[in-house]
Amino acid sequence: MCYVRVITMEPAFAIGLDLGGTNLKGGLVSASGELSAYTHSPSRVDESAQAPIDALRQAIEGLAASAPGRVIALGLGCPGAIDPEEGCLVGRTAHLRHWESFPLRTSVQSLFGGPVVVDNDANFAALAEHRLGAARDARVSLTITMGTGVGCGIVDRGRVVHGARGGAGEIGHLPLDGRIPCACGVPGCVEPECSGPGLVARAREAGLAIESPAQVYALAAAGEPRASALVARQADRLGATIAIAVQILNPDVVVIGGGVANSGELLLAPLREAVARYALPSHAGVRIERAALGEAAGTIGAGLAAWDRANAAD
Amino acid sequence: MCYVRVITMEPAFAIGLDLGGTNLKGGLVSASGELSAYTHSPSRVDESAQAPIDALRQAIEGLAASAPGRVIALGLGCPGAIDPEEGCLVGRTAHLRHWESFPLRTSVQSLFGGPVVVDNDANFAALAEHRLGAARDARVSLTITMGTGVGCGIVDRGRVVHGARGGAGEIGHLPLDGRIPCACGVPGCVEPECSGPGLVARAREAGLAIESPAQVYALAAAGEPRASALVARQADRLGATIAIAVQILNPDVVVIGGGVANSGELLLAPLREAVARYALPSHAGVRIERAALGEAAGTIGAGLAAWDRANAAD
Repeated sequence: MCYVRVITMEPAFAIGLDLGGTNLKGGLVSASGELSAYTHSPSRVDESAQAPIDALRQAIEGLAASAPGRVIALGLGCPGAIDPEEGCLVGRTAHLRHWESFPLRTSVQSLFGGPVVVDNDANFAALAEHRLGAARDARVSLTITMGTGVGCGIVDRGRVVHGARGGAGEIGHLPLDGRIPCACGVPGCVEPECSGPGLVARAREAGLAIESPAQVYALAAAGEPRASALVARQADRLGATIAIAVQILNPDVVVIGGGVANSGELLLAPLREAVARYALPSHAGVRIERAALGEAAGTIGAGLAAWDRANAAD
Repeated sequence: MCYVRVITMEPAFAIGLDLGGTNLKGGLVSASGELSAYTHSPSRVDESAQAPIDALRQAIEGLAASAPGRVIALGLGCPGAIDPEEGCLVGRTAHLRHWESFPLRTSVQSLFGGPVVVDNDANFAALAEHRLGAARDARVSLTITMGTGVGCGIVDRGRVVHGARGGAGEIGHLPLDGRIPCACGVPGCVEPECSGPGLVARAREAGLAIESPAQVYALAAAGEPRASALVARQADRLGATIAIAVQILNPDVVVIGGGVANSGELLLAPLREAVARYALPSHAGVRIERAALGEAAGTIGAGLAAWDRANAAD
């Protein structure tokens, strides 16, 4: 008698979730990083400590029900510093004001039966760009997300660099001859001149009737002198910031993402010049690339990290 | 009949070597980091490309012959960036001018039969302080060596952080409002005001007849106004440099080593104040400690890394 064992290769997925100040994004992520069932819902983080947990539960149930196969692990990214060993938020972050020192991993594990990994959203975006996006051939990459602030994730040979308690990559508030006071309190902080909202605020102070960074870049490209000076200053200070991060971390690729990156070479060309000006010759050859994965990068990265966790648990 | 197998626990050692611009230091390092048979000899790096290899061969033979047990692996530290995958020097460094892109690991392997690990000397000193010294309870530590320049090694959960090609931790030449031109070419580089030789040069320019950083600290402690101003400026710029590295890497401990550290609180007290002034509140709690292992740190770290390599090869 002869037994034939039939092995059905049922497809498997990780759930990736990206909890922001406004939206909860989610999707199913294959082992190779393909994203499907991508969804948005309100993140409800301003309502109470419980409301975003309810939003997460609903998203997890919906994604699990729609999966055409097994769901093997879950990754969740959110703003703020997250202790990599404990899986809890370190202190409080502006966008998650109801969650002081919140035990995020434990809370999500009670909603989902399998392995759970939690991390900062910029770290997950950086992981996705490193493995699949603009830094996919890098040994070490920095992915800088130009959103409300200037965020940064560091990936070294496929693994996120967290620092002691999840606080690595805080490049937005370096003391670098900033001329505008910042609420952070660091003397000379350059974020008010580097971030998207900062650029818009400086342009409006200069009398330009604009609403977005893209409009400032368009005016600069058309030769408007105030817009040109502000874009040059942004590129100079952001370039010094990146040169410093490059000397400390020695990445081979720096990826620029977020809304500002949509302006492409209008920012990237002067930025590359500034990095070359402020970096040591040994480090000035770093590549500066535009992000490749767009707004789903954080969701994809969360799913990839969930796969790592599931494979490590095997 | 009964066989009794007698297992003799012969002691085992790694050879640690620290090749500097003047001296080659070496010793036997036990698995727990105890140093024995510590020796100095001329490094001969200025003579030719072959001369330091001859010095290394002699040191290796001498240490192997003196070992009261097996020698299982060898670690060698030297100045400059070393590619962590290839084990070769990246370009050329001032102190090893005959060794452009030199295949260091391969060359030393031909002198020693067992596993060989090569790395930057500041990285090995940082590894030793992290495992056994002032940062032994840290998750992530920076060890800053104040010698001719300002060197830095980064260790994350027991492992050295190298960057893509061994260039991580280059904190000596950040563009931070430096007032004295530096040969490195970075605008605003602060090394001429932060390093030991820089402090001495500034003091002599100010008319003080001194020969060493220790004399500048002694004069500042006695209230001499020019010395006080120079030490305050050194602490301020070194503090801004460290605050920046702390925001990018989020260590829990920063170790200050090298000759300048012998002045203890005369530098460390104003340095702690400056770091607190320039770091975000979330990062300002980092501990700043004086190095514990002294000038043998690099040799001990080379031995510890050799043990890691031997254990990984098992």
